[in-house]
Amino acid sequence: MTKLQVGIVGGTGYTAHELLKILLRHPDVNVAFITSESKTGTSVADYFPDLPPDNFLNFKEIDSQNFDSVDVVFLCTPHGESQKIVPQILGAGTKVIDLSGDYRLRTPDSYKNWYKMPHADSPHLGNAVYGLPEIYREQIRQAALVANPGCYPTGALLSLIPLAKSGAIRPEKIFIDAKSGVSGAGKKLTQLAHFVEANENLTPYNAGHTHRHIGEIEQELQTAFNRNIPVVFVPQLVPLNRGILETIYIDRPAVKNQQQILEILKDFYRKEPFVRILDDKLPAIQMAAGTNFCFIGAVYDRETDVLIVVNSFDNLLKGASGKAVQNMNILFKLNETTALI
Amino acid sequence: MTKLQVGIVGGTGYTAHELLKILLRHPDVNVAFITSESKTGTSVADYFPDLPPDNFLNFKEIDSQNFDSVDVVFLCTPHGESQKIVPQILGAGTKVIDLSGDYRLRTPDSYKNWYKMPHADSPHLGNAVYGLPEIYREQIRQAALVANPGCYPTGALLSLIPLAKSGAIRPEKIFIDAKSGVSGAGKKLTQLAHFVEANENLTPYNAGHTHRHIGEIEQELQTAFNRNIPVVFVPQLVPLNRGILETIYIDRPAVKNQQQILEILKDFYRKEPFVRILDDKLPAIQMAAGTNFCFIGAVYDRETDVLIVVNSFDNLLKGASGKAVQNMNILFKLNETTALI
Amino acid sequence: MTKLQVGIVGGTGYTAHELLKILLRHPDVNVAFITSESKTGTSVADYFPDLPPDNFLNFKEIDSQNFDSVDVVFLCTPHGESQKIVPQILGAGTKVIDLSGDYRLRTPDSYKNWYKMPHADSPHLGNAVYGLPEIYREQIRQAALVANPGCYPTGALLSLIPLAKSGAIRPEKIFIDAKSGVSGAGKKLTQLAHFVEANENLTPYNAGHTHRHIGEIEQELQTAFNRNIPVVFVPQLVPLNRGILETIYIDRPAVKNQQQILEILKDFYRKEPFVRILDDKLPAIQMAAGTNFCFIGAVYDRETDVLIVVNSFDNLLKGASGKAVQNMNILFKLNETTALI
Amino acid sequence: MTKLQVGIVGGTGYTAHELLKILLRHPDVNVAFITSESKTGTSVADYFPDLPPDNFLNFKEIDSQNFDSVDVVFLCTPHGESQKIVPQILGAGTKVIDLSGDYRLRTPDSYKNWYKMPHADSPHLGNAVYGLPEIYREQIRQAALVANPGCYPTGALLSLIPLAKSGAIRPEKIFIDAKSGVSGAGKKLTQLAHFVEANENLTPYNAGHTHRHIGEIEQELQTAFNRNIPVVFVPQLVPLNRGILETIYIDRPAVKNQQQILEILKDFYRKEPFVRILDDKLPAIQMAAGTNFCFIGAVYDRETDVLIVVNSFDNLLKGASGKAVQNMNILFKLNETTALI
Repeated sequence: MTKLQVGIVGGTGYTAHELLKILLRHPDVNVAFITSESKTGTSVADYFPDLPPDNFLNFKEIDSQNFDSVDVVFLCTPHGESQKIVPQILGAGTKVIDLSGDYRLRTPDSYKNWYKMPHADSPHLGNAVYGLPEIYREQIRQAALVANPGCYPTGALLSLIPLAKSGAIRPEKIFIDAKSGVSGAGKKLTQLAHFVEANENLTPYNAGHTHRHIGEIEQELQTAFNRNIPVVFVPQLVPLNRGILETIYIDRPAVKNQQQILEILKDFYRKEPFVRILDDKLPAIQMAAGTNFCFIGAVYDRETDVLIVVNSFDNLLKGASGKAVQNMNILFKLNETTALI
Repeated sequence: MTKLQVGIVGGTGYTAHELLKILLRHPDVNVAFITSESKTGTSVADYFPDLPPDNFLNFKEIDSQNFDSVDVVFLCTPHGESQKIVPQILGAGTKVIDLSGDYRLRTPDSYKNWYKMPHADSPHLGNAVYGLPEIYREQIRQAALVANPGCYPTGALLSLIPLAKSGAIRPEKIFIDAKSGVSGAGKKLTQLAHFVEANENLTPYNAGHTHRHIGEIEQELQTAFNRNIPVVFVPQLVPLNRGILETIYIDRPAVKNQQQILEILKDFYRKEPFVRILDDKLPAIQMAAGTNFCFIGAVYDRETDVLIVVNSFDNLLKGASGKAVQNMNILFKLNETTALI
Repeated sequence: MTKLQVGIVGGTGYTAHELLKILLRHPDVNVAFITSESKTGTSVADYFPDLPPDNFLNFKEIDSQNFDSVDVVFLCTPHGESQKIVPQILGAGTKVIDLSGDYRLRTPDSYKNWYKMPHADSPHLGNAVYGLPEIYREQIRQAALVANPGCYPTGALLSLIPLAKSGAIRPEKIFIDAKSGVSGAGKKLTQLAHFVEANENLTPYNAGHTHRHIGEIEQELQTAFNRNIPVVFVPQLVPLNRGILETIYIDRPAVKNQQQILEILKDFYRKEPFVRILDDKLPAIQMAAGTNFCFIGAVYDRETDVLIVVNSFDNLLKGASGKAVQNMNILFKLNETTALI
Repeated sequence: MTKLQVGIVGGTGYTAHELLKILLRHPDVNVAFITSESKTGTSVADYFPDLPPDNFLNFKEIDSQNFDSVDVVFLCTPHGESQKIVPQILGAGTKVIDLSGDYRLRTPDSYKNWYKMPHADSPHLGNAVYGLPEIYREQIRQAALVANPGCYPTGALLSLIPLAKSGAIRPEKIFIDAKSGVSGAGKKLTQLAHFVEANENLTPYNAGHTHRHIGEIEQELQTAFNRNIPVVFVPQLVPLNRGILETIYIDRPAVKNQQQILEILKDFYRKEPFVRILDDKLPAIQMAAGTNFCFIGAVYDRETDVLIVVNSFDNLLKGASGKAVQNMNILFKLNETTALI
């Protein structure tokens, strides 16, 4: 069988690193090129010493000719950059899995609202499929452009959509207290992520209705609930490298029974390889770190009539690159779990 | 001036350690004795090498004669143990500052409800003063027995009581998402606190209406609001040694204006040396770790009509031993900040 | 092809966990059984939630009948336990890879000297092959019993043997300053590994000639140098989960040239998939953590005439379970890197 | 008594922060000014929220008039900057405690050798006193300019000088394996100190004869031994905020007896408040972090004839700002331990 030819654009950050680790052990894939503006010419094996040393890749400049030669391009570019090259790649008949936020919101208005700038490729906005495999698997199969969901929305939506669709919850609003390891803040040097400042610390940031991931969550909840559900969202940076844990509070759920809630979740995910419902305990980050699993647990607090749903997952895997490869596997009719378990 | 004579019972844990650090630098205090069952005879300076080496204390057995010879005894005993010796100490005319949970709840029923055992000293239960200085300073001044509040309730109550009393919030229920460093789980060896399990992890525990601190919080909120307010409370263990951060969500506050909320808090604490209201950012743990300060900040999220109040403080200082010394300073008419700033 | 049938004895610790992660993704292997005294009957997938959930293993009791049914047994038992069951397994014609220290030292006297107890299976002591693949690959191929080397000796010997054999160093003694992540201290609860004590700390332990790994290192250096080389060894616990870094000092090396030293190392390991020589920098733990690689770098300090050799590797992978699977691959003529890259 | 008037130049880094924490609780000191180029006008209490909020300092620009108005200036400036303003401050008759490396080496040649640039104030180089109180207390008392020793040299010299002077060791060279928390790398954003890179990592840097602190150590050992002793020095960054641990190897010591070695150290430091010799265990970082103590322990390894001396101390306190205040206390005949215990 000929291998799938894959390219990566924007190859020096944490998500590209994880993507490479997965793709280099994927038996059906050949990484044809990986680009980096700042590291052009550098050996990828030298730059990421934990990768197999006998891959012969060097970082290259972006060269549009490359787009013709591959089946799919992963974009690990920052927000705002993907939309500049997606038309070109799609024009070459090549598929795109975009790990940036550029194509996650369905309308130019919504994009402008959350990203504070007009979208440069609005024609393709509507064609993109929101790449949450457990919800949009059929659409992903047909897609030319997959918008890989943000890290925080992944856990939040996997936790809430089954409860919305089943009618188990009919909330006015939803409270998401989110905690992320520092790799979620990226490789860019900032004071917030300076070791001495982040270590022995816990820092809320972007509280209020400001984090861009709220846009994704509200958009997808609207679809699931068929009405608008405002989301209260406080992200917090915790002193660890990898992993997200979200504690979600839902006031006065329709189903007031913990076991029933868990059954609804288990039913929904019965055939899913990467979503796991915990019966008798809540998720913790270490269960999920280093895996492509998302763990979900729930507690119904009778005294307050509040349902507490907790999820954990690896922000770089199920939250980014693992999910991106899962999308690739779906898109090209490969075994969905290959290289991910 | 003669120095205040002080005794410590239960001297080998984290709170006793912090208490000693503070008391040994307190110019008006002499530590007359410190007890430990397991370490009787051991030099305190050897056991806690970061203490000044020229203190000549050895751990002693509990000896009731000692209670006559001191002005105040700090109890760093586990829950259930304090109530066994408090009658004896009070009987000797000596004051008590109890760091355990034994006297925080006002009625035997409430104690039994949360601690799942009958109280062995119910006569003194009603006499104890809940030692939150910013709320009960006058009562503490007159007290014979001070029940030092739990760590989590300290931040929660300092955040909520001013808003309750001012009428700024009139909630049906309150959501507290609490995060604590691992010293909050004590010195006892447990799998949860084993380094390899706690590091690179974040673990919710006691979710639902089970954590004993809920009892304290609901009791004091009832006083402040003059009605019952159920508290949703999810504590979570974060991989750092010291510090608590609580993210509190209040749905549909009466005052829908962030600046006004902050002014109410600032007014309430204008003369308080240890509570600090942040104007333009939210608290983080590192601000407070190693200090006796509690930091409070707030965001009003207009889109969801939710008030988010965040506090941070050191669980071993403002959350335990620092507050205990603050209570001692009040009780004996010393300068309230001595040895604490 | 029929799969290799594999059993694991002592399945609940950190090395068994890593072993399972590797073996469950190994295409040529079937894990036939895994034993645990304390967890008999528990689902392995529940106990280790990051493993693929659809493995149907439960922990079993040790049952000697199982030994007939597999091709190889991995022993993750504590020191002193392996020697009790090895005769039985070998008697069943089944091969053994022992991750404990029981068969690493070649003579009963040496064992007694370092482990302070007589060896219960001295007849097999002499037959065991010291399972350092880069040095003993041919012997491993023929072995019935492979003694998987200790974590610290792995890096030390990989760093020193090529320099010994080439004559580049001819030291009187060797200084090894070793640092290990806390998983090296195992899953057993100890004060040293309690989060609050290990975090924000760095602790030397077993300094002097007491750590049992010195015995292995001196034994193998004696072979390489053909004379006795005393080893100064100070292990230190560092606040991280996984990884070892060893800083080795060699006074007055014969070859007084950094580049030549690096060339000797590169030549020696040119065909080795898991040992990597760094040209222009020293190893750090993060390069190696999560991989089966051992990184080696060197600096020759002309002013002091001292050669500094530094290595890093994952104590649970190249230092334990990764190397164990590498040995299994060799033993059964599988591709040596399968499931390890 | 009039308070000592103190100024701080370069006030936003970690050492200035610690200095402020100490000086603001020092009963005999008034902090008259604190400068910062980048934060001129900012409230110091806002910038360092853990400081007492009622200090009314704002960061100022450097203004030479200020130098007349104070008794002593602490320089927390980077290397190369101190030498530009020291002449001015000394000219105003004001004393200087310089926390940079500018005046630690005694000769312009030595400075140029280690700092790779000519010294701009060589006249004062010879007048500076190397501010290690336990060795140079008498000279510090008379000094106008105190060169506060580097962090690494502090522990190394306190460990070695008593052994040198007593003749207990007469080495050809000395091996120092040094480990430092990340605050030792300063507040400047670097990849090495980015949380995700420094966490779960351990990184040697500046191996070989390159770290500037070697110059200080060799200079002071030359004085103690009365001959040149080359120092092998490998510093390593460990994932914790504060603290240094140095493992020092001395081949073939003259005194081959652990107890005698410890007695020599204890004798030397019998009256010293901040150096503590451990009898029966080795130092760990947590003992010393947050204190001005330096802990020293020793093991004599008979099998290899090597003396292992280990020290631990807080790099920001005994290694920098704590020692600087100790020097100030000495310089102005205050109680040497005030504000430090």
